[in-house]
Amino acid sequence: MVIPNHHYADLKGSYLFRGISERIQQYLRQNPDAHLLRLGIGDVSLPLCPAVIEAMHKAVEEQAHAETFQGYLSECGMDPLRETIAEYYRSRGIAIDADEVFVSSGASDELGDILHLFDRSTISLIMEPAYPAYTDANIMDGRPVQYLSASSENGFLPLPDESVHAGLIYLCSPNNPTGAVYSHDQLKLWIDYAKRNQAVILFDAAYEAFVRDPSLPRSIFEVPGAETFAIEICSLSKTAGFTGTRLGYTVLPKTLCADGMNFHDMWIRNRTTRTNGVSCIIQKAGLAVFSPEGQKQIQDNLEVYRKNAECLMRALDEAGIWYCGGKNSPYIWMKCPSGCTSWEFFDRLLNEIQVIGTPGSGFGPCGEGYFRLSAFGDAGEIAEASSRLKQFLLR
Amino acid sequence: MVIPNHHYADLKGSYLFRGISERIQQYLRQNPDAHLLRLGIGDVSLPLCPAVIEAMHKAVEEQAHAETFQGYLSECGMDPLRETIAEYYRSRGIAIDADEVFVSSGASDELGDILHLFDRSTISLIMEPAYPAYTDANIMDGRPVQYLSASSENGFLPLPDESVHAGLIYLCSPNNPTGAVYSHDQLKLWIDYAKRNQAVILFDAAYEAFVRDPSLPRSIFEVPGAETFAIEICSLSKTAGFTGTRLGYTVLPKTLCADGMNFHDMWIRNRTTRTNGVSCIIQKAGLAVFSPEGQKQIQDNLEVYRKNAECLMRALDEAGIWYCGGKNSPYIWMKCPSGCTSWEFFDRLLNEIQVIGTPGSGFGPCGEGYFRLSAFGDAGEIAEASSRLKQFLLR
Repeated sequence: MVIPNHHYADLKGSYLFRGISERIQQYLRQNPDAHLLRLGIGDVSLPLCPAVIEAMHKAVEEQAHAETFQGYLSECGMDPLRETIAEYYRSRGIAIDADEVFVSSGASDELGDILHLFDRSTISLIMEPAYPAYTDANIMDGRPVQYLSASSENGFLPLPDESVHAGLIYLCSPNNPTGAVYSHDQLKLWIDYAKRNQAVILFDAAYEAFVRDPSLPRSIFEVPGAETFAIEICSLSKTAGFTGTRLGYTVLPKTLCADGMNFHDMWIRNRTTRTNGVSCIIQKAGLAVFSPEGQKQIQDNLEVYRKNAECLMRALDEAGIWYCGGKNSPYIWMKCPSGCTSWEFFDRLLNEIQVIGTPGSGFGPCGEGYFRLSAFGDAGEIAEASSRLKQFLLR
Repeated sequence: MVIPNHHYADLKGSYLFRGISERIQQYLRQNPDAHLLRLGIGDVSLPLCPAVIEAMHKAVEEQAHAETFQGYLSECGMDPLRETIAEYYRSRGIAIDADEVFVSSGASDELGDILHLFDRSTISLIMEPAYPAYTDANIMDGRPVQYLSASSENGFLPLPDESVHAGLIYLCSPNNPTGAVYSHDQLKLWIDYAKRNQAVILFDAAYEAFVRDPSLPRSIFEVPGAETFAIEICSLSKTAGFTGTRLGYTVLPKTLCADGMNFHDMWIRNRTTRTNGVSCIIQKAGLAVFSPEGQKQIQDNLEVYRKNAECLMRALDEAGIWYCGGKNSPYIWMKCPSGCTSWEFFDRLLNEIQVIGTPGSGFGPCGEGYFRLSAFGDAGEIAEASSRLKQFLLR
């Protein structure tokens, strides 16, 4: 007899972005001519950079000819790409071997897949507000979850609570949704906590490329000791506009062990059994991202998003609204005005100034009363949204 | 405290294809000038067809311009591709809705991922000889596995054993490694067994495109009743040469339920939580495979592999060797001559005629004394290998 995985029944019914989409659809039915300024879902708006496009055309052409045709791939990633990513770390003073880099289809895929390494009795610790899939992936596994709440008091950067004994710790820095970034010292406290609790940190570095303050870490492996307690999960989605092209990578050090088992060996075994690797065409696109030309071109795109964030921050500053993020992150996490709930603020922005954002309460209860703005939109639309937002908030 | 998934320790140490690779490396060190004829691992040799290449160039170019740029995708697959695949089924008289088709990165990824729907106490039934990842994916989950042995007596097509009560049944037809194909009547027996045992059939149809006998099923959904007991997992790897390009699809009917839970709803929830979908460039390549032009071009390629199989079968017929497969499959499963074990035969072919095949014992104990030949190689090399093989066997 087949027994379904009953943990799916423990998932909550609705999903944040589906709820937003339904309200937008309803609004557009009543106002079919409305033009909405979308600062909601964190999708990029700029096309892929020329170096990546050129590399993909070449990769496609290679699949057309027997001499260059690529069949089955190394499951953990193509060697040149793994080597290039290791070099990307080494250029920042972080000693990573190429075989500690695993190519993935993206961070969202990897964040679920990597959980297979851990027994379902391991307690996961999630800082809220959080990307909803962290929680859902654990609930679907039947893994117990504990939460640590962020707030404006701790700058939305919670630190270890010694009364909590977790085995898996999710850290996301720069954070989605708050845009807050942990310092070296703060990450050190988390590594020390992981050491005391024999825990593993899952470090979500999807937004590392947005850090511009050189004093802030872009990788947990900048902090000594992380190599025995952390796995870093990265993505090209936001760094290089790969949200629909799909590519990411994970750094899993050979020194990561627990209870006599080596997680690096286990992950190789997982990958060689459970996948045949990421498309060669997309991996070759990834190689182009890390070329000198590609790195220059993606910085030009990131600069557009950074300027968008500055424009939004200026509007909030001028309206006297509290926020964090924006400086080293594409997200701005603002306090809703005058005691508005997150969804009330969402509805007012939609109905009164046709601006879409993301209600903070969708990222966990302690997000109530906050609102996320994304800087990934078109520069002209962001400027218009900033202006409307400022006027709205100063009313 | 983090607790590793200890089931990884239950995996056997070595992997079939790694073992083959090591012996080949050793031979080449001793015979650096040797040219080996490779009929081992089932990788394709022909490049992608022109319609697919053209579609990928177009898809790449679309990622270069803001007006056509594709960001986040529907996690379950792009609607046009899901609709096209549903139509591919409907054209063969099988009623499938587009939302019952899920786009995947390939069968090997999906065969592991789909297990998440089932409780780890569910017993899996695997017909041996089998693709080794079936077993390994279950062992890594800690799921109990029972085996049913195929043999020349049952034509390498085992039928239900009423004394075994499994919850998940793996069927692969045309089979890898044996090339044997279940008839409608035989699949009906398995569906009846699934019904009696409240089980789910995982039907691996990766080789369906090789069936040319119109009386044989290419999909389990050709058999009435399958829609409440089966999931069909398909791949473009062998059909269209996508082993390195990576694309597959799964048909999971809305009527598949157990214990009050609907597996279709669960799989949507899994995909929307655990992935952001398959690269838009690769999905557009998939659309081209199912275009009239693409379908014609892939048939031209399949015909090359079919002729290769005929060439190998002729050699075995002339040498009086028992085999199955080859007719509706790219694989030929031959009996090793004169009581040779599978690995002895491997070594003799490698050393004496420089032909590489796959030892049958690598697919399970009942594969001992058998050997798999793949017809995916270059036509000239297959002809040469057939000729050497015949002479070797007639000695």
